[in-house]
Amino acid sequence: MRQFTPSIDLLSRVLAGELRAMARLMTRAEAGEAECREALARIYENAGRAHVVGITGVPGSGKSTLVCVLAKHLRTSGHKVGIVAVDPSSPYTGGCIMGDRIRMTELVSDDGVFIRSMATRGVQGGMARATSDTVDILDAAGFDRILIETVGVGQDEVEIARASHTTLVVSAPGLGDEIQAIKAGMLEIADIHVVSKADRSDANRTLADLKSMLRLGMTADKRAAWQTPIVATSSLNGTGFTELINSLKEHKAFLATSEIGRARALQIAEFRILKTAEELLRRRFLEHRASRIASVTERLADRRLSPYAAAEELLEGTTIVAA
Amino acid sequence: MRQFTPSIDLLSRVLAGELRAMARLMTRAEAGEAECREALARIYENAGRAHVVGITGVPGSGKSTLVCVLAKHLRTSGHKVGIVAVDPSSPYTGGCIMGDRIRMTELVSDDGVFIRSMATRGVQGGMARATSDTVDILDAAGFDRILIETVGVGQDEVEIARASHTTLVVSAPGLGDEIQAIKAGMLEIADIHVVSKADRSDANRTLADLKSMLRLGMTADKRAAWQTPIVATSSLNGTGFTELINSLKEHKAFLATSEIGRARALQIAEFRILKTAEELLRRRFLEHRASRIASVTERLADRRLSPYAAAEELLEGTTIVAA
Repeated sequence: MRQFTPSIDLLSRVLAGELRAMARLMTRAEAGEAECREALARIYENAGRAHVVGITGVPGSGKSTLVCVLAKHLRTSGHKVGIVAVDPSSPYTGGCIMGDRIRMTELVSDDGVFIRSMATRGVQGGMARATSDTVDILDAAGFDRILIETVGVGQDEVEIARASHTTLVVSAPGLGDEIQAIKAGMLEIADIHVVSKADRSDANRTLADLKSMLRLGMTADKRAAWQTPIVATSSLNGTGFTELINSLKEHKAFLATSEIGRARALQIAEFRILKTAEELLRRRFLEHRASRIASVTERLADRRLSPYAAAEELLEGTTIVAA
Repeated sequence: MRQFTPSIDLLSRVLAGELRAMARLMTRAEAGEAECREALARIYENAGRAHVVGITGVPGSGKSTLVCVLAKHLRTSGHKVGIVAVDPSSPYTGGCIMGDRIRMTELVSDDGVFIRSMATRGVQGGMARATSDTVDILDAAGFDRILIETVGVGQDEVEIARASHTTLVVSAPGLGDEIQAIKAGMLEIADIHVVSKADRSDANRTLADLKSMLRLGMTADKRAAWQTPIVATSSLNGTGFTELINSLKEHKAFLATSEIGRARALQIAEFRILKTAEELLRRRFLEHRASRIASVTERLADRRLSPYAAAEELLEGTTIVAA
């Protein structure tokens, strides 16, 4: 009789939705432990049911608070909600958000909500891969709505938010010009636009600005397929969350019936495969080259070697045979 | 007689400080053209004189404006200044910054200032490597003060700011809690702290907050080696820039005389070598695997293959021989 490895034992507990088992497998997956790959493969087979929503926005756009309030609304509708915070500054670890109004502890003590804050440190360079593994674990454990929060600055961070079924881009009134400029670069990735802090008097101005920016960038192609809605929300008084949840449902239904849904699934899969392969390749490379790095680094620092020559020296012995 | 390649011809013009030649070589280096490697190797031999300053801060901290004002002050002291804007939202392309007060055009029309805005698009995944090549070109062309501006969010962006002789972290009054939290993660990388917008009435509060945060995080080790100064600047009225330039000089002198200077040079070299090798490895991998990706992606999307199995299939034929 074949003996089950610890991670296979862990697997059955994850599939049963045991929170501690989920957390443990996530930690091992994050660390890139080769021993848990078999379990992750089984997890992947069992995943695929959740609606994965990427939520991004510049710092100060109120996206963490939005994620909390959205999670509460989704809970009320009977969903199990996973939250994956890629943003290293996410306030989830602190326990409390939005002062006295909404306490994270309410969510934390709810078994139907699983919050995972990805520590930047452990997964240097492998954030995208680790995030995907974490989403799978939540999905396979029966969390049917998964919110991935990333800060909308930084290449990797924006890419991670894109690798989801539905991408929300959060804007807010009262941010400076520099911030608006960054936002402009994120306009095109939104499936749904959210203007948060709609209770503020200057929210209408933000809404109007966003509408005119979108009109400028709108392509005929996009108009035909999916009309990107703009939803104004207030995490303070709850405005707009019913509408936001409806927009999420509509986009989910749209993906299920349109060719774009398939294209999106392929895009997510390709992103994932490349990120995973690149990470494995980099790990192997670093493992085998660790002993050589110091000497090459020293010669580079002393300018006895040029950067490309140094890199090539490090790459010696690496062959990629044509497929 | 050996015929010079076009990039070698370009090289001599770059070394003579010809601006158009510099821009052309930067474009070719960014694109990762193998043909310009010989020129880049020669550039590297001729570089190493400039003081490279990484400037980072969250969006809204006013770092772009600070970079402009700092560049003007450095010009007044007779330096040639290179500006490398990694931040995709940098306003440099727009020509004008800070409304009517400071016009980028003043800098743009000055031959002693070279501004390079790194387009995020062209150099996906290779931003760090491309930034280093650009800095070398500026350095070899005689620009003796180089300012690298990155947005202080996102793993890669912060790493790039760290890979410099002196790292400036810019804070500003009036940013929200969410933003402050991100800043907290950047405290440890600063060689010099700048509190910008010191003309604002709430700047003293930011200064006090920063001081108490630093006291909490200060290690005995750090205290002995380098006392990280906090400089309050106002880009509006010019306050603090003389002090900032003095701090930069002091840190440069500190690096020249302390063991930390050597450690820093090695750290920069190692970062560079790894980023360059990883990029070369990834490029080769993608070139050789392009034909296989579609099929593997499809099977992954249909869950007929797990992510790690998919990645391994893509990696088949790749060998890294132990060094």
